[in-house]
Amino acid sequence: MNGAESLVRTLVGGGVNVCFTNPGTSEMHFVAALDKVEGMRCVLALFEGVVTGAADGYWRMRERPAATLLHLGPGLGNGLANLHNAKKANSGIVNIVGEHASYHIKYDAPLTADIEGIARPVSHWVKTSAEAKMVAADGAAAIAMASTPPGHIATLILPGDTAWNEGSGPVKVPAIPIRPKAAADAVKEAAQLLAQGPGTMLLLAGEGMQERGLALAGAIADKTGARILAQGANARVQRGAGRVPVNRLPYPVPQALQVLKDVQRLILVGAKAPVAFFGYPNQPSVLTSEGCAISTLTTSEEDSIDALDRLADAMGAKLKEAPIQQPFKPDMPSGTLDPDKIGAILGNIIPEQAIVVDESVTTGRGFYPLTAGAPPHDWLQNMGGSIGYGMPVAVGAALACPERKVLALIGDGSGMYTVQALWTMAREGLDVSAVIWANRTYQILKGEFDNVGAGKPGQKANDMLEIGRPDLDWVALATGMGVPARRTADCESLARQLQRGLAEAGPHLIEVVL
Amino acid sequence: MNGAESLVRTLVGGGVNVCFTNPGTSEMHFVAALDKVEGMRCVLALFEGVVTGAADGYWRMRERPAATLLHLGPGLGNGLANLHNAKKANSGIVNIVGEHASYHIKYDAPLTADIEGIARPVSHWVKTSAEAKMVAADGAAAIAMASTPPGHIATLILPGDTAWNEGSGPVKVPAIPIRPKAAADAVKEAAQLLAQGPGTMLLLAGEGMQERGLALAGAIADKTGARILAQGANARVQRGAGRVPVNRLPYPVPQALQVLKDVQRLILVGAKAPVAFFGYPNQPSVLTSEGCAISTLTTSEEDSIDALDRLADAMGAKLKEAPIQQPFKPDMPSGTLDPDKIGAILGNIIPEQAIVVDESVTTGRGFYPLTAGAPPHDWLQNMGGSIGYGMPVAVGAALACPERKVLALIGDGSGMYTVQALWTMAREGLDVSAVIWANRTYQILKGEFDNVGAGKPGQKANDMLEIGRPDLDWVALATGMGVPARRTADCESLARQLQRGLAEAGPHLIEVVL
Repeated sequence: MNGAESLVRTLVGGGVNVCFTNPGTSEMHFVAALDKVEGMRCVLALFEGVVTGAADGYWRMRERPAATLLHLGPGLGNGLANLHNAKKANSGIVNIVGEHASYHIKYDAPLTADIEGIARPVSHWVKTSAEAKMVAADGAAAIAMASTPPGHIATLILPGDTAWNEGSGPVKVPAIPIRPKAAADAVKEAAQLLAQGPGTMLLLAGEGMQERGLALAGAIADKTGARILAQGANARVQRGAGRVPVNRLPYPVPQALQVLKDVQRLILVGAKAPVAFFGYPNQPSVLTSEGCAISTLTTSEEDSIDALDRLADAMGAKLKEAPIQQPFKPDMPSGTLDPDKIGAILGNIIPEQAIVVDESVTTGRGFYPLTAGAPPHDWLQNMGGSIGYGMPVAVGAALACPERKVLALIGDGSGMYTVQALWTMAREGLDVSAVIWANRTYQILKGEFDNVGAGKPGQKANDMLEIGRPDLDWVALATGMGVPARRTADCESLARQLQRGLAEAGPHLIEVVL
Repeated sequence: MNGAESLVRTLVGGGVNVCFTNPGTSEMHFVAALDKVEGMRCVLALFEGVVTGAADGYWRMRERPAATLLHLGPGLGNGLANLHNAKKANSGIVNIVGEHASYHIKYDAPLTADIEGIARPVSHWVKTSAEAKMVAADGAAAIAMASTPPGHIATLILPGDTAWNEGSGPVKVPAIPIRPKAAADAVKEAAQLLAQGPGTMLLLAGEGMQERGLALAGAIADKTGARILAQGANARVQRGAGRVPVNRLPYPVPQALQVLKDVQRLILVGAKAPVAFFGYPNQPSVLTSEGCAISTLTTSEEDSIDALDRLADAMGAKLKEAPIQQPFKPDMPSGTLDPDKIGAILGNIIPEQAIVVDESVTTGRGFYPLTAGAPPHDWLQNMGGSIGYGMPVAVGAALACPERKVLALIGDGSGMYTVQALWTMAREGLDVSAVIWANRTYQILKGEFDNVGAGKPGQKANDMLEIGRPDLDWVALATGMGVPARRTADCESLARQLQRGLAEAGPHLIEVVL
């Protein structure tokens, strides 16, 4: 059994049974091994940003790593932005990156590059396999690293000869370490802060944003008079009717400062101390007010559920007293669409157990409250700020949860970075409703132009901020990749098309002209 | 004048008057400065791989650097593959990469990444500006580095506060070093090898592939009985009727070995010693035969034209005796298309001074001899092997030479990586004829699967090598981005559509179904 087959058997044995691929010559033995080994679903994408984003989405919904298969340094480079996003989301991914045969690297052929150098900024773990006999063991170590909570990016570089030479056979994955528990002192300190009553806030992230974490945090808040708040962006929020609702820290600095201004004691639950997304002239980077005491209950590595459990016990908070979101549907709007009307339509239409992948950027700033009372669903956001994450993450989420509907809400500017994701949706017949907000502008940048004090954009600047002239035709783009698509500009037809699309199997796209 | 304006004025003053952009918040001051400063053409792309590939194409045709404007680490990451290709092509590029304000970096906001780490593998020069007063001087140094022959990738990282704080005003670009001349011994050694007669070969690259270099090499070969050959891929070949024709080293190893087997003395003219594109089991990496003496007349840094001039003098070779390609047009084919018929059509249709950007991969392997007798034109190839280079390079070439027609010959697999280039062609009204070879397969990989000894692909492997199911509709994709498009599968209609498209202003696309 060669190295490649030893590695594929190690992956499957280690529970990695989806591989998102965009292979090249140096990966052909790995591809050949996929023919021989049962239990690995292979999903081709036509651009590597789709590959890596899909692996991110898969982890978020399954908490098990998918593998990627990438072609040398440039293939990894094409996947880099979504690996950045995945790393910031604490997603676990096993990247397999092909490399020249080890003896060939020194000749500096056209595709030769410093693959480790490219991998390092977006990986927690990088290794080039030294020989075919070691590939399976290296793969097992990569799986263990990727799976170690909260999830890590492990990049294994596979020189061609380590794939085609005789390997070791499969290797068992080492035991995955469990999350460390919060120190007793951390729980005690949080309890002391909470005992001081109003003016205390729990800032939640990670597991704290899933059903049980929110319930515990909600119960603690209810008992103590503290508030709960989420980070501005979250890898996965379990929300909707019957769950504990939580607001997010707003993106614009003045609004974020407003939300935090009366917080005297901030308890971090898997979250980092809140800072501005960007630095702006004359605006602070740190969003908490001066004198706010910041205490860490758990880091992102630690077990937030256990810590919240212990904290709830310490405070005498009871789960059943957590304030629960009641179901509600906003009034169904009519006429020409605007962001609030879209939010209201979504609040009416999001189906139970939907996975909402939110890359709405400016269009979606008001969606959250209007969808809070929808049936229970998951809400996924961009953690690394690099746009183009949404449609690939939708691909991965749909593969992870084939029984659920995926609703991908995507700004037109964002969607173009990884537009190739539509083809993979079509090939795999994924239940993704992709909705494109076609405002034909990098709308966020128009605000940011002013925020950074650059004044009012002139003609040349505006040309760099607007993506019209020519307008993108998303119906043509989607149908060109095999995804049925419609265009709409009014409430009634958006609602009708969304309902119809969600009722059918397979992907569809709606271009919403704003 | 702030740092950003100081930098833009330095760029314009230094002859950098095209900027390919995909900006974000951290680049807004740079964008604002573009409004204030005359003389910089700004070209927006919807994906950064288009930005960097366009800068590559611009350099190849103008030998002057364009600037890119990229948004932090992930934006640079999206442009990485085409920077890899540009670096291998010895193209000069000034990358401007936005970064958080320097005081904000430590907060590890979502977009924070190791930008220098991402830049280094694809850059010859990387610098993060330390303060606004230094930005213009750093920009001047970047221009000098990018412009130093044979062309270099210079990446300047621009923290937000260095853009918005008070700058120095524009700074003059330092003198660009000229190419070093070949040592007298190198010319003497080459002359001695040539004096031994047949069995000697000049392997050409870089300037050696442009009109005068080829004429000199051709004259030397004619005088001495040596052969001339080009690398497999070349950044820019000046060819066609009235120029010295030269063949390229074939991509498949067995054919390359065949071409080189009788070469006893190889003289490198700006070229590297020939090696296989990939290492394969049971095939050599080094393509020259054992015992072949390899001598370097010039490295890629040195002045090949001067060295060939001196060598021609030493051998008594006269330019006017160089063997010149006679004009010829292949018989115009008819009926169903195949690669040879396509080559014949191209041989009839390539207009004088056309710029052919060749990313035809397998479909185009036979185009070269069939187009050798077309009117004088340039032929550009992928130097780094990362597919997705072609349409972006066509964008840059068209902007560099608005008076010339650009013919982009693109495999369908390749085209999808940077499909967003079509939108920039439409917005800028570029005279690009994009022709897509729609074989719905990564055809090269089917050959490589066998070459690496992986046997015959099964169903799962084939699914990773074929890009049909669903078939891409390139007419829809192009029209969706504002580029008029047609589909064809026969000779007559391809010829007619190409002629019509080349006669009109602005871009068009032809999907050729194979």
